[in-house]
Amino acid sequence: MKLWYGVDVGGTSVKTALVSETGQILAKSSFDTQIETGPLDLCRRIHGALNETVNTINLDITEVTGVGVGVPAFLDVEQRTVIEAVNLGWKDVPFADMLEKELGLPSAVENDANLAALGEAWVGAGKGAKSVLCVTVGTGVGAGIVLDGRLYRGVGGMAGEIGHLTVQRHHGLPCNCGKTGCLETVASASAMVRSAKELQEQGALPPTPAIHGAKDVFDLALQGNPAAKQILVEAADWLGYGLSLTAIVLNPDAVVIGGGVSEAGDQFLDPVRQSMRRYTLGKTFSDTSLLLAQLGNDAGVIGAARLISQQMASREV
Amino acid sequence: MKLWYGVDVGGTSVKTALVSETGQILAKSSFDTQIETGPLDLCRRIHGALNETVNTINLDITEVTGVGVGVPAFLDVEQRTVIEAVNLGWKDVPFADMLEKELGLPSAVENDANLAALGEAWVGAGKGAKSVLCVTVGTGVGAGIVLDGRLYRGVGGMAGEIGHLTVQRHHGLPCNCGKTGCLETVASASAMVRSAKELQEQGALPPTPAIHGAKDVFDLALQGNPAAKQILVEAADWLGYGLSLTAIVLNPDAVVIGGGVSEAGDQFLDPVRQSMRRYTLGKTFSDTSLLLAQLGNDAGVIGAARLISQQMASREV
Repeated sequence: MKLWYGVDVGGTSVKTALVSETGQILAKSSFDTQIETGPLDLCRRIHGALNETVNTINLDITEVTGVGVGVPAFLDVEQRTVIEAVNLGWKDVPFADMLEKELGLPSAVENDANLAALGEAWVGAGKGAKSVLCVTVGTGVGAGIVLDGRLYRGVGGMAGEIGHLTVQRHHGLPCNCGKTGCLETVASASAMVRSAKELQEQGALPPTPAIHGAKDVFDLALQGNPAAKQILVEAADWLGYGLSLTAIVLNPDAVVIGGGVSEAGDQFLDPVRQSMRRYTLGKTFSDTSLLLAQLGNDAGVIGAARLISQQMASREV
Repeated sequence: MKLWYGVDVGGTSVKTALVSETGQILAKSSFDTQIETGPLDLCRRIHGALNETVNTINLDITEVTGVGVGVPAFLDVEQRTVIEAVNLGWKDVPFADMLEKELGLPSAVENDANLAALGEAWVGAGKGAKSVLCVTVGTGVGAGIVLDGRLYRGVGGMAGEIGHLTVQRHHGLPCNCGKTGCLETVASASAMVRSAKELQEQGALPPTPAIHGAKDVFDLALQGNPAAKQILVEAADWLGYGLSLTAIVLNPDAVVIGGGVSEAGDQFLDPVRQSMRRYTLGKTFSDTSLLLAQLGNDAGVIGAARLISQQMASREV
């Protein structure tokens, strides 16, 4: 049986897992990212973590076939070089080659959100679907597209940037991307928190508890607060609208929603579904299952393992 | 050299061509569709046309490897049965099998707009591009998506139905699909004609010439009529907006525009491009070439030939 090492590099911590050919996690570990020590040192620490992990289950590093790594980054077309990773402070880092040299193992690198999508499509909520859109709703709204089991990146790696669908052509809020009216200005967890804080100032929401994240809004909504319910429904309506646009283009069989917002469950998913139905063609809507992500924080490491296994299979052809 | 027979069935006429492996047309013919005689008779007349065509260039039918046919229809997932072709009056017609039986040759059937897209992506404006969106702007707005040289149909054959992107969430015009605010209610040739007729009634456009098609609006705009120019720019702005939404999802390297509207050339294409730039991410915009279709009415037969050649290559694997 082949074993793959999946790594998910975040701004604060690095998660790793040994993953089987069937997508099962055999062993996990995590350590601090320590951004300040740079990418080469990170390669060494990934090497160290891999050695430790294989030891804990009485294996040798030679039994690992390859390493896949997710990075919160924009990569080049060949997926060998990190063009920019703002949260890590990296620019033009040939990370895949650095890893291969340090580990002596075939290595692949990809954007972390894309790998979470690949993981969910492989053995998570999208398992068995032919075309899967995996949406992460958090600070922003991002998506990965998996067609016939493989990531679809688009010509420049920008496919699925649905947080930047312009959903308000006029009078939209400014977005980090420089445009206005982007989906993530109205449908993200951040957008919900912003609305809640505004309503607190206006007295429409109680001044306590302080709103730190979308979960605080969900809790208020669950307690029956009508203003909090309204925030949730409006964000869900915008997200459903953005998903309807995406579904018209892709006609996917599964749309998987992950990220903090998914914790609200059906309270959030039901109005998303109603909105999608309203704005998309009947057949497109009935073709699509709207699902909650299943793998949680493991999606990234599982997707990373899947990426390197696919890349090595392609190289063998 | 392998030869393929491409057929494009329209509501009034059927176009056919013998096509080489490199996408060159060796001989063409066309005949009336005669809807009333039904699909089986159409198979026989396609057979007759094929015999005549091979004779004109001193070949034998045995030298033709397969037949591809485009139909203005919605097909089943396996692309063997026409579920519905409103303009032909067909329902649940197993047309691919009927053709194979009549012709004694491997046959493939696909939606005609998809085949026009496949033709343009193969040897037309999209030649050499990895991901191509081919948009036809006419009575409606339709699109075919070609990824890595193959049609991407989506799970239910609905991918690329961008005429039904809801671009006006509120106060949109009713669409044939039953929804309101669809892209094709504001960006199609029909939408331009409708606007022009309204302006004629209001006196903002001269009462003559009578407006029959988008070309009449283009001609008035070229003559410098400001109201006609405004109609053209508004439709182009909406189309560019719809294309920006599509490009955010797909990140294609080529968007090819065909159909009657493309005859207006840069007069139409320039405002489409400006609108795309306004509503999409900078990198997505710079990744994408916006091009006019090159194959005209030949796109369908060339794409039909490509389809059967690809399907037979897949069967051989």
